[in-house]
Amino acid sequence: MQTKFLLDEDQMPKAWYNIQADFPRPMPPVLHPQTHQPVGPADLEPLFPMALIEQEVSTEREVEIPEPVRDVYRQWRPAPLYRAHRLEKALGTPAKIFYKYEGVSPAGSHKPNTAIAQAFYNQQAGTKRLTTETGAGQWGTSLSYAGALFGLDINVFQVRVSYDQKPYRRAVMETYGAHCLPSPSDQTEFGRKVLAENPEHTGSLGIAISEAVELAVQDPDTKYALGSVLNHVLLHQSIIGLEAMQQMEMADSWPDVIVGCTGGGSNFAGIAFPFMGHALRGGERSRIVAVEPSACPTLTRGKYAYDYGDTAQMTPLTKMHTLGSGFTPPGFHAGGLRYHGMAPLVSHARELDLFDAVSYTQRQCFEAGVFFARHEGIVPAPEANHAVKGAIDEALRCKEEGKSETILFNLCGHGHFDMAAYTAYFSGELSDHEYSEEEMAMALSGLPSV
Amino acid sequence: MQTKFLLDEDQMPKAWYNIQADFPRPMPPVLHPQTHQPVGPADLEPLFPMALIEQEVSTEREVEIPEPVRDVYRQWRPAPLYRAHRLEKALGTPAKIFYKYEGVSPAGSHKPNTAIAQAFYNQQAGTKRLTTETGAGQWGTSLSYAGALFGLDINVFQVRVSYDQKPYRRAVMETYGAHCLPSPSDQTEFGRKVLAENPEHTGSLGIAISEAVELAVQDPDTKYALGSVLNHVLLHQSIIGLEAMQQMEMADSWPDVIVGCTGGGSNFAGIAFPFMGHALRGGERSRIVAVEPSACPTLTRGKYAYDYGDTAQMTPLTKMHTLGSGFTPPGFHAGGLRYHGMAPLVSHARELDLFDAVSYTQRQCFEAGVFFARHEGIVPAPEANHAVKGAIDEALRCKEEGKSETILFNLCGHGHFDMAAYTAYFSGELSDHEYSEEEMAMALSGLPSV
Repeated sequence: MQTKFLLDEDQMPKAWYNIQADFPRPMPPVLHPQTHQPVGPADLEPLFPMALIEQEVSTEREVEIPEPVRDVYRQWRPAPLYRAHRLEKALGTPAKIFYKYEGVSPAGSHKPNTAIAQAFYNQQAGTKRLTTETGAGQWGTSLSYAGALFGLDINVFQVRVSYDQKPYRRAVMETYGAHCLPSPSDQTEFGRKVLAENPEHTGSLGIAISEAVELAVQDPDTKYALGSVLNHVLLHQSIIGLEAMQQMEMADSWPDVIVGCTGGGSNFAGIAFPFMGHALRGGERSRIVAVEPSACPTLTRGKYAYDYGDTAQMTPLTKMHTLGSGFTPPGFHAGGLRYHGMAPLVSHARELDLFDAVSYTQRQCFEAGVFFARHEGIVPAPEANHAVKGAIDEALRCKEEGKSETILFNLCGHGHFDMAAYTAYFSGELSDHEYSEEEMAMALSGLPSV
Repeated sequence: MQTKFLLDEDQMPKAWYNIQADFPRPMPPVLHPQTHQPVGPADLEPLFPMALIEQEVSTEREVEIPEPVRDVYRQWRPAPLYRAHRLEKALGTPAKIFYKYEGVSPAGSHKPNTAIAQAFYNQQAGTKRLTTETGAGQWGTSLSYAGALFGLDINVFQVRVSYDQKPYRRAVMETYGAHCLPSPSDQTEFGRKVLAENPEHTGSLGIAISEAVELAVQDPDTKYALGSVLNHVLLHQSIIGLEAMQQMEMADSWPDVIVGCTGGGSNFAGIAFPFMGHALRGGERSRIVAVEPSACPTLTRGKYAYDYGDTAQMTPLTKMHTLGSGFTPPGFHAGGLRYHGMAPLVSHARELDLFDAVSYTQRQCFEAGVFFARHEGIVPAPEANHAVKGAIDEALRCKEEGKSETILFNLCGHGHFDMAAYTAYFSGELSDHEYSEEEMAMALSGLPSV
């Protein structure tokens, strides 16, 4: 009984897939934060090397993966696809469940798929230093790893509450040679402003982004790197779905349903966009389901509107599903899913009705993750538990309906760095939060008028 | 430039390799703890299922790997072999460095190679519950994982100092459904005796083994599982070296030097014994180097003598390199290398002069591990850092001597669960310990007279 589907190295995709080539309507323009006029490449140059800016706006279907990037990818790619025989049996479902496993990377998640690419293009452009932000630490870890391999200094602004609560993540970044600072910090004007108002501020992703961007724009040798949301990030993650398409064919199967979890949108897009594009070009259509935490319900309860990516409103305005750039979700452990906005490409696909979105509470997701671990043997990251929960619910629906559908989900990372969250779950310390209509309206009232 | 050598699933070994078939002298007998007479299978029956007892005493060269074990192995095996091109370049060495990477298992180390096999044979024999001990937690994690897959209750006695300091490891075991108790505990007669003498006792592996063994002998449905030291454990780990031999051939290369770290001896034997046997049968001989911590210098400073495996002296007596079953190494973080004894098979091979042994301090090893992480991208477990240090020193010797030897080492696990140790290293909190002659003589004075 085959459970693992592994591609040969020479089957690893040679190009990333860009869904902008297949969208029936083009993306809304990105606007300048002050003028509200469409931005051009020059506006983005202080932040990114030109190769990434070109990818950001490209509508070419295929973008070649440079050989030095493929060379590093081969450390863990092609990543395995598994058939979850034991999980199916435990659920008593007639459904076939497959999962793509991205936890095999040295950083333990899908994030290196773009970290490596961004580090490479920056090295090529002569960048000496990259600044970035991180919440739980998956992205900071991945960029630190990439920086070590491509000889770049990495400065990570870690949200202070995570910096204090998760010293082990910081230790990983430092092992890779990166510099990790708690945000808000006294290293930036914006950080100092926030601290002046509240010296005990625990930070947020939006603030950390503002700090990282501020440092980057001041120094021509320094650029900025973002781990999700942007078009080029989602482009790099398409390798997940491109591999999965080949692996589903190896398994003589094709997904009726595809499930991914969404924070900024990159792992979801990674697994879903290649299949979505396949359908847009006339191929078989899979039903696609995005799963988000009910404590940060961007897709299910947010507004599709122009908004800033950061708290200081320094980033360009993008049209996306957002809860408002001032939104701070309550404390919950899927740190990678706490962003106030959704990737513009994912938001656009949502507006085109190309996928469904559901939300679950964190306790529902941990329950699913523990069940998965006991049957499949892999402890998922708290973020990935959302996808696990979504896939299990689809499998139970199939059981109820007596349908043997094929379900594919993205297990975007392992939970080895996140066991404190499991400890909190087991000890009953986790609580769930559902927003009232009033709270949502309040959060959305601060959106910029564009 | 190929860096990863990956076997197809159908190249995964179908049998484990038993070095007892090739030793020029047979192993000394195992003795009964009270009578000091050679033990028979019946003496071991309260502890292990007969299939494992047969493997313990077998001198057959090949032992077939049952298909249900192979089926689980395929979740992560065959494990990759890497050529460390970036590390070589950073060291400026003409040596070629290869490493076998066992951190790809769901538990993050080589331990599941035997945990899965032990769980399978116990399930077949009708065992309902397994007891075991764990220090740092790698073994407890692996047996918990195996227990989940084969439907066995797992009771883990975790050394209290680790239980208190490493709650995340416990969380992994509990996620897999295992029960984890701090040792000394009030669940066993021996534990209660230790606690009566010292209620604040922080525990030791020897005490935890005594507790696990005591519970197992009391209940016919309960057996005991050990994660290293025993012959059948080392047998199961031979899959590491068997795969590596094929992979070295894929790389058109063969190791002049093989390096592994030693605690109980299982990962070292796993990589080394298949090559050692190859040489004993007349094949090319590789120089083999065991690396141990200078704070627990079993091979380099211990005595080859009959000793107990546990503190309560309940286990049979085996002839091995030992520091005395009462030995407690000072606090250092390579928890998997803290055992007072060495696997009898490894000890026997040492007496036959089949390999060299060296020791390093923990700070030397962390320095090497950080260097490795920054160039190869993988953060090693503190135990594995000893092998990394040994391999780097061999590569630097090659540089000095102008020799382009081929070095193979076993990277037996990743350090994701052990980042607290890296934090301690970076903050300068780690200290090194070298024993005086007097301290060593004192430790060895308590050996049983057999």
